Amino acid sequence: MENRTELSALGEFGLIRRIQENTNLKNAETIKGIGDDAAVLSTAGQELLISTDLLIEGIHFDLSYAPLRHLGYKAIAVNVSDIAAMNGIPKQVTVSLGLSNRFSVEAIDELYEGIQVACENYKVDLVGGDTSASRSGLVISVTVTGLAAKDEIVYRNTAKPNDIICVTGDLGAAFMGLQALEREKQVYLANPDMKPELEEKDYVVLRQLKPEARMDMIHELKEAGVIPTSMIDISDGLASEILHLCRQSGTGANLFEDKIPIDDQTYLVATELNFSPLTAALNGGEDYELLFTIRQDDYEKIKHITDITTIGYMTADPATVQMVMKSGTAVAVTSPGFEHF
Amino acid sequence: MENRTELSALGEFGLIRRIQENTNLKNAETIKGIGDDAAVLSTAGQELLISTDLLIEGIHFDLSYAPLRHLGYKAIAVNVSDIAAMNGIPKQVTVSLGLSNRFSVEAIDELYEGIQVACENYKVDLVGGDTSASRSGLVISVTVTGLAAKDEIVYRNTAKPNDIICVTGDLGAAFMGLQALEREKQVYLANPDMKPELEEKDYVVLRQLKPEARMDMIHELKEAGVIPTSMIDISDGLASEILHLCRQSGTGANLFEDKIPIDDQTYLVATELNFSPLTAALNGGEDYELLFTIRQDDYEKIKHITDITTIGYMTADPATVQMVMKSGTAVAVTSPGFEHF
Repeated sequence: MENRTELSALGEFGLIRRIQENTNLKNAETIKGIGDDAAVLSTAGQELLISTDLLIEGIHFDLSYAPLRHLGYKAIAVNVSDIAAMNGIPKQVTVSLGLSNRFSVEAIDELYEGIQVACENYKVDLVGGDTSASRSGLVISVTVTGLAAKDEIVYRNTAKPNDIICVTGDLGAAFMGLQALEREKQVYLANPDMKPELEEKDYVVLRQLKPEARMDMIHELKEAGVIPTSMIDISDGLASEILHLCRQSGTGANLFEDKIPIDDQTYLVATELNFSPLTAALNGGEDYELLFTIRQDDYEKIKHITDITTIGYMTADPATVQMVMKSGTAVAVTSPGFEHF
Repeated sequence: MENRTELSALGEFGLIRRIQENTNLKNAETIKGIGDDAAVLSTAGQELLISTDLLIEGIHFDLSYAPLRHLGYKAIAVNVSDIAAMNGIPKQVTVSLGLSNRFSVEAIDELYEGIQVACENYKVDLVGGDTSASRSGLVISVTVTGLAAKDEIVYRNTAKPNDIICVTGDLGAAFMGLQALEREKQVYLANPDMKPELEEKDYVVLRQLKPEARMDMIHELKEAGVIPTSMIDISDGLASEILHLCRQSGTGANLFEDKIPIDDQTYLVATELNFSPLTAALNGGEDYELLFTIRQDDYEKIKHITDITTIGYMTADPATVQMVMKSGTAVAVTSPGFEHF
């Protein structure tokens, strides 16, 4: 039988101590981590980046299929992704948790295991947070800090016409992973004896449950000596993000359907579940790939990077953000936005 | 009739734009606020302080008596209080909200009005956040940054034996305010025609609903040329906080019952509701006053500050944290901690 220790046996301060004891500081810029009224950070003469994300049970995740370890990892990764999207290096995170007594100490340990693995992978220090009861579901609020030299920070509003539009990795997988998980959940609820059939959907399922921030691409771009002219991470789908870049930069865009990188498994799962793979890529969300623009002169420097795909270019007319389809016709890119309400 | 605009009419991006438009940046250190993947902050060569607090409906506040405007103010104030407790100057906040569709746009506007008034008072910039749906109640997660010169930061673990223990303002009021509000709520639920009787409890009620961070005291101490030897803000009650300072500094403490500052109204309300005023001060919580220690040599420099009271001194024996009662007997200071679980 599994051990179950009630959170009340540990108490809030006990839980904080437990987290503190399992936390190793990695960055010289972290002067003081958990254990005082605030953490103390040095910025070593660089600019500080800060971003925050709120994950709420029943809205952002479903514990009936999201393992707590993956969820902890994801909470850190999606925040790190925002620092990547500024061309920064992540340094610290704070993690606040709202917990109902449904959760045991062992469950919280699992969540923190995922958080700590992500902190190792992305080389960030856990420096603080808050723990609280919650009347309802699990609430995870993460704030991340990062550093960047002033002239290396990449904003959303600085793309220029003729800049080449690039994307990392492939798109639509996380959305199809979510659909596959939802489908299996319904099957399971209808017949608890059914075995889940997710073996051939492993890639898309993992993209949904345990996404990665593309810090590897940030390092590749630095090595190639390229600073993007604008950048954003793809949390709400390619359509929403290209519209953000265009609206804020005052540009239009031409994208090409046949350039959009979509994994074979995304195609297979989309076909099986009656979704359009292109719609998954455009509006699916949660891919956490990077969408960025570069000067045409920089193309030679990045073309060897296998995980970067050029998908179009910026244009001068802000009224026209369009995708040229395989058929040759151009259709306007639109997005309902990712309306959570 | 009051206007009611559904959040869905605005959408997440609409809500973010609305917040952005109502936000004026005040600090030269805020390079870029809301509107990109992360905010960009300069630290002007100082150390960065960061702290975060999570407020959850039904645990930290009850909307049946907490006006949204006050709640917004309080969410900022309790975070600023953590920066004050490090002897820092607050600079920026991020605010994340989990909202159910029970809330209208007008309700969120009220909440942000309170947030913005607090940002004005404490001279902090709202630089980012996240908005999300919530299946259940309102969730507010605030992260605050602050700056301090390296040699001015005050930690919890640096008090020395014989240091004088000081406290700002008065204690126990916020707790008695909460008890008064809870009592009135029960009366109202039993008989909705009853008028609330809170006129003579205005001070304690406001201390609960709209606490202030004692940045004024931080400025007074700076003017007096005094850097405390240790400091913490009183969120969980004097007992819990002095135990934190002693445990982390490796000291004991002698406190004196007759020195503990308690407001007359706190006495009156405590007596009416059958509470001990001293217990309210020791274990009540949410006062957000500052508890700090100073070197004996510095006493002359702070004794003119009317809102600072000396309540005891640090001792060498870490096993003895006690309060000398008016009767002359000494009793051990204990705290159940503020166990939310």
